[in-house]
Amino acid sequence: MQLVSIDDVRAAAELIRPYVLRTPLVPAGWADDDRPLWIKPENLQSIGAFKVRGAFNAIGHLDESVRTRGVVAYSSGNHAQAVAYAAAVYAVPAHIVMPRETPGIKVEATRSHGAEVVLCGAGQREKVAAEVVERTGGVLVPPFDHPDIIAGQGTIGLEIAEDLPAVDNVLVPVSGGGLASGIGTAIKALCPDARVFGVEPELAADTAESLRLGRRVDWSIEDRNRTIADGLRSQPSELTFAHLQNVLDGLITVSENEIRAAVRELAHRAHLVAEPSGAVALAAYRQGATPPGRTVMILSGGNIEPPMLQEILAG
Amino acid sequence: MQLVSIDDVRAAAELIRPYVLRTPLVPAGWADDDRPLWIKPENLQSIGAFKVRGAFNAIGHLDESVRTRGVVAYSSGNHAQAVAYAAAVYAVPAHIVMPRETPGIKVEATRSHGAEVVLCGAGQREKVAAEVVERTGGVLVPPFDHPDIIAGQGTIGLEIAEDLPAVDNVLVPVSGGGLASGIGTAIKALCPDARVFGVEPELAADTAESLRLGRRVDWSIEDRNRTIADGLRSQPSELTFAHLQNVLDGLITVSENEIRAAVRELAHRAHLVAEPSGAVALAAYRQGATPPGRTVMILSGGNIEPPMLQEILAG
Repeated sequence: MQLVSIDDVRAAAELIRPYVLRTPLVPAGWADDDRPLWIKPENLQSIGAFKVRGAFNAIGHLDESVRTRGVVAYSSGNHAQAVAYAAAVYAVPAHIVMPRETPGIKVEATRSHGAEVVLCGAGQREKVAAEVVERTGGVLVPPFDHPDIIAGQGTIGLEIAEDLPAVDNVLVPVSGGGLASGIGTAIKALCPDARVFGVEPELAADTAESLRLGRRVDWSIEDRNRTIADGLRSQPSELTFAHLQNVLDGLITVSENEIRAAVRELAHRAHLVAEPSGAVALAAYRQGATPPGRTVMILSGGNIEPPMLQEILAG
Repeated sequence: MQLVSIDDVRAAAELIRPYVLRTPLVPAGWADDDRPLWIKPENLQSIGAFKVRGAFNAIGHLDESVRTRGVVAYSSGNHAQAVAYAAAVYAVPAHIVMPRETPGIKVEATRSHGAEVVLCGAGQREKVAAEVVERTGGVLVPPFDHPDIIAGQGTIGLEIAEDLPAVDNVLVPVSGGGLASGIGTAIKALCPDARVFGVEPELAADTAESLRLGRRVDWSIEDRNRTIADGLRSQPSELTFAHLQNVLDGLITVSENEIRAAVRELAHRAHLVAEPSGAVALAAYRQGATPPGRTVMILSGGNIEPPMLQEILAG
C-alpha cells in the first residue's frame, strides 16, 4: 500500500498556507519539570478544529473542472464544518449529509458557511452521501480515509518539527486515524528520534486493540458511542491503519474522568477551551505513561456545547 | 516629556524574543462581515497575560550588576506573576508585595515561581514595596509607569503590524495605560492610517473622562473597584497619559453585562478563556462603535478564578 510521504505533507503545507492558521506551540509552564509540555492549539482554527487542514488540502487538490461541480461530505461533527468552510472559500457548492439527531447548533454552523445540509436517518449517511454524489456530480471528501486528508493533517507535524526540532514525545488523539497518520508521518521523517503516541478513550479503544492484535478489529458503534469524546468514535480505515502501524510508538487509553479533568485543566491553566476529544492528549500526559522529555500535545478541537462545558467545569 | 519610540519597541522585541510567546493573530470567522476581526490571544503567554512582555523588557534592561540584587514589585494581579516569572528566568531574587486580601491562589502562583511574597495591609503596597527596596537593594519594577514597560507591551503592536499591515482598527484595554501606550506607539509608527481605540469599563472610566478633559482626573479606588474587570482598576500615570493623548483615536466604555457577554462569546466562539479585563475589547467591538474595516482586538489575559468563569458562562 502506498503511504503518504513527507513530500506529500510538504506540498499540502504549501497549498493550504493561505487558508489555515499557523498555530504556535504554546509552552505549558504549569507542567512537570522533567516533561516540559507544549500545546498545539488547533481549537484556534476557523471552525474550531484541525479538520480544516485536510479539507483545504483535499479540495485544493481537485482539478478545477472537477471542483466546480461541488463537494459532498458526511459528518455530524467538525469535518462537516471544515468542508463547508473550505468549499465556501473555494466558492464551490457543498452538500453535507448529517444524521437527523445532530444538534441544531451544528447544523446551523454548517449552513452558515453556505452549505446545503441533507439530513438522514441513523446509519444512513454513507448511503445518502453516495446518492448526493450521484445526483450532483460532486466529489466526496471523506473524513480521514484519503491520502490528501492525511497529508493535510500532517502539516501539524511539519509545524511541530519546525518550532521544536528537539521534540521527544508527541501525543495525538486517534479516531479514524487521519490526524495521527499525518502527524506521525511528518514527525518520523523530520524528528526520527521522537516518539509518537496515539490516545484513545478507554470506551472507544478499538485502535489500541487493533494495534495489539496486528489487525483491525471492529467495535460496535453502540460501544464507541459511550465516550463523551464524540469526535473519537470512528475507526481507522485500511489506509490509516497501515499508517498507524508504521508511525505510532504506542497507544494510550484514558478514562472518561481523566478526559473531563483534562478539559478543566486546559480551561483553567492554559486558558483554552477544548472539546472532550481535544483534551485526551493532556489526559494521557497526566497519566505519566510517556517517557521524560520535551512533549507536545495536540489540542485537536474546541467545539463543545455550552451546557457540556459548564457541566464539566463544575466538576 | 520623552515618549517611547518605535526604536525602543523594536529593541524590546529583540530583547524579549527568547522568553515570550510570539502570539498569532487568530481570525474570528464568526465576526461581522464588514468588520473582519482578529484576536491577539495574550492569554496564551506563560502566566496567562501580556504582562510578561513588559516585565522581561524592564528586567532585561537592568545592568547585570544591578539585576543580581533582585527585583521588587507590588501587584495583586498579573504583574506580580509576570515579575516573579521573569526574575526566575533571569535567576535573580524577587520580592512581590501583595495586599493581604489577595486570593490565596494568586499568592501561591506567585510563590510557585520562587518569589518571596510580602503581604501588606490595604493601601500599603507602595510604602511596603519602598521598604523592601531599601532593605534588599533590589530594583522596583513598576506595573506600567516606566518606558521599558511601555516598550515591552508595545511589542504586541509590532507583531500586529507584521502580521496584518493593512489593519484599520485596534482595540486595547486601558487601565494604567502601559499596554495601550505601547501598542499605540507601534501601530501609529508602522500603520499610520490605522485607528487605535482604548477600552474601559464604564465603572472605571477615569481615562475616558481624563482624555475628554485633557487632564488626568482621579476616580476613587472604591468607584473603580466596582467593575468585575479587576485588571482595569488602575489609572494612568503622567507618563502613560501623555502617550495615550498622543496615540489614541478614541476611548470606548463598556458595561458589566457587555463584559460578561464577551467572556462567554470568547469561550464559545473563539475557544479562548478570557478574564473579564481581557474581554473588554470584544465588548467594545460588539457595540459597533468602531468604523468598518479590519479590526484587531487584544485579549490581554485569561486569569479568571474557576468559580467566576463558571458563573459567567452560566449567564
